[in-house]
Amino acid sequence: MYIKRINWAIITITCLFISICPLIIQAQEHPNLILTKAGVEKIRAQLGNVPLFDASLQKLKEEVDAEMALGIDTPIPKDYSGGYTHARHKRNMTVMQQAGVLYQILDDEKYAKYVKDMLMQYEGMYKTLPLHPKTRSYARGKLFWQCLNDSNWLVYVSQAYDCIYNYLSKVERKKLEKNLFKPFADHISVDSPQFYQRVHNHSTWGNAAVGMIGLVMNDKELIDRALYGIKGVNLDKTAKDDDGGFLNEDGKAGFLANIEEPFSPDGYYNEGPYYQRYAMYPFLIFAEGLHNVKPELKIFKYKDGVLLKSINALINLSDADGDFFPLNDGQKGMSYYNDALVTAVDISYYFGNQDPGLLSIAEKQNKVLLDDSGLAVALGVKNGEAKPFDKKSINLSDGPDGTQGGVGILRSEDLELVFKYASQGSSHGHYDKLSYSFYDNGDEVLQDYGLARFVNIEQKGGGNYLKENKTWAKQTIAHNTLVQNEKSHYQGKYDIGSKYHPDLYLFDVSNADIQLLSAKETNAYPGTEMHRTMAIIKDESFEKPFMLDILKVKSDSTNQYDLPFYFMGQVLNTNFEYEVPKTLEPLGKDNGYQHLWSEGCANTTDENTKLSWLEKGRFYTLTSATLKDDELRFVRIGANDPEFNLRREAGFIIRRKDSKNTLFVSTIEAHGSYSPVSESALNSKSNITDLKVILDTVDYTAISITTINGNSKLLILANNNASKEAKHILKINDKDYTWTGSYYYN
Amino acid sequence: MYIKRINWAIITITCLFISICPLIIQAQEHPNLILTKAGVEKIRAQLGNVPLFDASLQKLKEEVDAEMALGIDTPIPKDYSGGYTHARHKRNMTVMQQAGVLYQILDDEKYAKYVKDMLMQYEGMYKTLPLHPKTRSYARGKLFWQCLNDSNWLVYVSQAYDCIYNYLSKVERKKLEKNLFKPFADHISVDSPQFYQRVHNHSTWGNAAVGMIGLVMNDKELIDRALYGIKGVNLDKTAKDDDGGFLNEDGKAGFLANIEEPFSPDGYYNEGPYYQRYAMYPFLIFAEGLHNVKPELKIFKYKDGVLLKSINALINLSDADGDFFPLNDGQKGMSYYNDALVTAVDISYYFGNQDPGLLSIAEKQNKVLLDDSGLAVALGVKNGEAKPFDKKSINLSDGPDGTQGGVGILRSEDLELVFKYASQGSSHGHYDKLSYSFYDNGDEVLQDYGLARFVNIEQKGGGNYLKENKTWAKQTIAHNTLVQNEKSHYQGKYDIGSKYHPDLYLFDVSNADIQLLSAKETNAYPGTEMHRTMAIIKDESFEKPFMLDILKVKSDSTNQYDLPFYFMGQVLNTNFEYEVPKTLEPLGKDNGYQHLWSEGCANTTDENTKLSWLEKGRFYTLTSATLKDDELRFVRIGANDPEFNLRREAGFIIRRKDSKNTLFVSTIEAHGSYSPVSESALNSKSNITDLKVILDTVDYTAISITTINGNSKLLILANNNASKEAKHILKINDKDYTWTGSYYYN
Repeated sequence: MYIKRINWAIITITCLFISICPLIIQAQEHPNLILTKAGVEKIRAQLGNVPLFDASLQKLKEEVDAEMALGIDTPIPKDYSGGYTHARHKRNMTVMQQAGVLYQILDDEKYAKYVKDMLMQYEGMYKTLPLHPKTRSYARGKLFWQCLNDSNWLVYVSQAYDCIYNYLSKVERKKLEKNLFKPFADHISVDSPQFYQRVHNHSTWGNAAVGMIGLVMNDKELIDRALYGIKGVNLDKTAKDDDGGFLNEDGKAGFLANIEEPFSPDGYYNEGPYYQRYAMYPFLIFAEGLHNVKPELKIFKYKDGVLLKSINALINLSDADGDFFPLNDGQKGMSYYNDALVTAVDISYYFGNQDPGLLSIAEKQNKVLLDDSGLAVALGVKNGEAKPFDKKSINLSDGPDGTQGGVGILRSEDLELVFKYASQGSSHGHYDKLSYSFYDNGDEVLQDYGLARFVNIEQKGGGNYLKENKTWAKQTIAHNTLVQNEKSHYQGKYDIGSKYHPDLYLFDVSNADIQLLSAKETNAYPGTEMHRTMAIIKDESFEKPFMLDILKVKSDSTNQYDLPFYFMGQVLNTNFEYEVPKTLEPLGKDNGYQHLWSEGCANTTDENTKLSWLEKGRFYTLTSATLKDDELRFVRIGANDPEFNLRREAGFIIRRKDSKNTLFVSTIEAHGSYSPVSESALNSKSNITDLKVILDTVDYTAISITTINGNSKLLILANNNASKEAKHILKINDKDYTWTGSYYYN
Repeated sequence: MYIKRINWAIITITCLFISICPLIIQAQEHPNLILTKAGVEKIRAQLGNVPLFDASLQKLKEEVDAEMALGIDTPIPKDYSGGYTHARHKRNMTVMQQAGVLYQILDDEKYAKYVKDMLMQYEGMYKTLPLHPKTRSYARGKLFWQCLNDSNWLVYVSQAYDCIYNYLSKVERKKLEKNLFKPFADHISVDSPQFYQRVHNHSTWGNAAVGMIGLVMNDKELIDRALYGIKGVNLDKTAKDDDGGFLNEDGKAGFLANIEEPFSPDGYYNEGPYYQRYAMYPFLIFAEGLHNVKPELKIFKYKDGVLLKSINALINLSDADGDFFPLNDGQKGMSYYNDALVTAVDISYYFGNQDPGLLSIAEKQNKVLLDDSGLAVALGVKNGEAKPFDKKSINLSDGPDGTQGGVGILRSEDLELVFKYASQGSSHGHYDKLSYSFYDNGDEVLQDYGLARFVNIEQKGGGNYLKENKTWAKQTIAHNTLVQNEKSHYQGKYDIGSKYHPDLYLFDVSNADIQLLSAKETNAYPGTEMHRTMAIIKDESFEKPFMLDILKVKSDSTNQYDLPFYFMGQVLNTNFEYEVPKTLEPLGKDNGYQHLWSEGCANTTDENTKLSWLEKGRFYTLTSATLKDDELRFVRIGANDPEFNLRREAGFIIRRKDSKNTLFVSTIEAHGSYSPVSESALNSKSNITDLKVILDTVDYTAISITTINGNSKLLILANNNASKEAKHILKINDKDYTWTGSYYYN
């Protein structure tokens, strides 16, 4: 008590003498960060009239009341993610934010008191708190093992503080700011520049944390530090973080740089949707705070409105169930049902153009923010304005200027093809240039493995990245793309991968019956160019649309090429004889190959290689125009996996040895159905009898696809001129083909 | 045309001269088999007023209209299940039955004409049709590769014929009966006694087929043949069918024998629920026909009303989703959504006690029969009479007299433990005495593998049983039960297995907090007695109920014992160190062991062996009171599986070598949850710190279970006296325990 008094004395003296002391500059009303005084009045007036809002409020109230009944616990930090102290502090930050909101909306002091009491406990503890005892992080926090989580905490707690600001006495506020908030903000920024002073999702959380507490405290220095980074601090540009990413190669830092750099003009976030979802919350919640407190910044217009664009991009990067495509280090199952997306959808609706498609997602989320934006969404839903969010085929450029490759999604009926030709994607990127995954009504047909991690499950490596994430999930062979000589793209090296990216060759969805995406990559294997064109074709002689994959390889050396297909499901049949081994051996020694059991082996016997499988009551067939003496391998993930960290899923590899220039052409059909209830199998067989390369020159590749009924279609692709206006004349087998544009299809 | 006329002439002459010609005996009104004249009038009067009925009718009409638009095709039989001709004839039988119903209800002649035209095409073909060209069946059909499917056809088509009976002229009826129905009924019965003259689900279909066409034709000889079997035919009692089942060991045959034999007094069907579901339709639809045409038989009262009881048993043999437990050769995913169960539910409701629980299942099925029973159900639903079907813990005896073991299900909250101590289960039985499976909210925690077959998927062995069904699925090691010296129970021999069965020791669910099932088996391994007691215990110091498994083995020889746990999901962690091999080898050479890859190996180091896993967002922990030097094995199904017929699922085996008498005690806890959306892991750790055998004598086994919080519970089981009245006094560690009944728990 005695010590505290002394501290206050020091503060008071400090304020008197330092001219920038924020408390003196101007008075602010509170709340003003996320909730606003006017907004709260509007909300209170509507209470009981807006079902989705009322339900969200009621649910929150029950949750917070239940938590409050348990009392307050702010344990001495001890655990990694998944452990008790980690989970407790994480829970505390949420409950404080929620209790703050309840105090404002319900005007019930018990919530304010709860927040205050907890904050005071934190204040008591934080003053003398050393670094977190766990040492694994490149930037240790105090409440948590990493600054990232400390930043999460402050982003939430800033909101709580804003909500009870006026409930607290001046003395109480000073105490908290001096002993808790300011040093907390300093620890995650000036004391941890390797964490804070970067363009990275970690830093975005840091920036938002510092900025939001700065906005509440009206501390210009903190706000500037949030927007522009720590003044005068420059990091070693060659240093790397835990994930192998450069700490700060180009010296950029701060919230604005974090908007500038990772988002492409289309709103694609360079680490992929899983991390965008994670980063979204601090981006948007801090932006909302800036909009409210510093409207002159016009944050939602920044970089041509990229924050709102990015929400649209993110929703488009989800499958039919709303699950995000697990590009790079993405954990499967993360979806737009995540709370960060409730924030995103509501903010996008309110600060954007009131897209009625967003309302339908809000309906599914069955939850809104308890602020102006959530009220607007709930009112929209109440008024029946919701319309389905219509996800179409879309191409999203990557890179700050949209010139570093991208991710494209072709959609046709229930099928979604996700084609990745993006840049490295920061330290969370995978070495999988020109890879793809394929979905049928939200279920994986050919999977992207995603990450090797059980986020927040302590028993699995403390809930952190497992070593198989590097040895398997990041490696090229773990993806549906070409591997040369059993090496990963860019040698699997982050610094090389970060320099290059594939380039878009063609994106054309003008004809709904044949949609194409095509890109080229020349740096993954020096001396080798890969040009992959993927199409979804809807043809009346097929039950459903099918996928066509043309992968043209040009190399100045002789290589072995492996093209894997990570099909999901159980093998039905093949058109080739194969041998299964008596004992299983790993397919290789490194670069991910050590994690594949070789489960079956064959050589091609026919011009077409066919493999059918069954998954979730649907049939699929891969047809590939293989060459004589191609090797075929069935593989199973899980070799050299001493802790059962990997899923035991299947793969199929076409291996072509001793080749320079070559061409892989494949189709994947989705067809028919099987019901274990009626036990009837419909249309269980492939419709394609012949997949043929008719011509393959430097300039043109022509593929014919013939069906059981003898219908035949021809696709000719111009390999080096994607212009829509270009005229082409080509003679194939004495027949002249003339067309305008990058491809011919008939 | 000329030939047809001659045939008619012959029929006419035959009828005039043969005194038993059925058409002359008595006149019957039609329809009278399933639909009745009075019933149809009632239905017509209600049309438009009963939503579930109207919707079912509308759906059927759309289906039939679409089928009719495609025209009639009755191809020359050629294929196995899954092939075109098989599927076509199967579809035809259904559509005829449906069109017949539509003709009656909608009074629209186009449906009658369609049935008639198709029947005439069949008549034209059948007269000269040879045996089906595929030779795999022990009893080949003509339309299909096996008599079984021919019988299916006739069961349906009899109903169609009844519906359009009055629409046809006498001459047309004669033509059909003489050239199609009578020879058809003869082929599947007198010409195929090895199929017909048995107690077996195949024969039930045969009996129903013959009986139903007999009822429509009013042919007493056919009806008697259906009810009592073929007069004077006795089969070789040692002959076996394709599945290794005896054709007819005891000479019994006919529909009544087929009710008498396979159903226990509790209504358990000896082949298990999957086959009961399959057999249910002919049992019930023929019973309904008999009830309508021959009410004096009182078929629904036969054997103390066992047919209706069996429906209740069958529904209780389904999990929380309505999927049947895949005991014996059961295919997973078969459920009470199957049409046979629509029949079962409606008939059970109408001819039984109008159980409102059945209405809730009918609501889920969203479909009713288009007859009196379906109308009654739809009216019940309309009137809001539905109540949840409350599945409770239940013990179902097996055997005609209920004395051949049984199947018990313990239910507590979301958990369901299925304990199988039944008899062999005919040729579809597995060698898995005292095995169990364990479910959490309809999801498998420990699985029963089910069959190795892709029913009706032609690419997988013609849709028939795969050879792995015998080499894997039927073998003991494929199940969660004890294997001695790597041999299957009863030497894996059907004739031995058919002689024996386990015996119930105890079923006590009087205390909802501790429910027990216990049975003994002494013949699976001569000289060895297995006594397994399974319990579900609900205890306030646990989040959810947990399973306790006590397996006491007494042997006069020294053996190796393997106790497998086919856990579903991904390994989270263990409390023991294990080695994973560099190459995978099969665990053994035969009896199913050849299909298991040995994926990891350890020896016990602690008194408790713990394994946790994660599945569908839920955590599970096995704790086993292992002995020093027990071997622990991780296994993976799929070795020696040259066509990828087996699912690559996991198992864990406790192996105890060089033992005579021994005791295996294990618990399985379901705990906590994980959401990939919120990424929060709740209660991911086991609550049990110590599972201990306190005492194990011939007469008593005492187990203590201690939790993290230090709570300790003691269970003492009397091993040789299950009497509820018996008084027990026992001293353990100087403390006296006295209780009444088979067990002590505190």
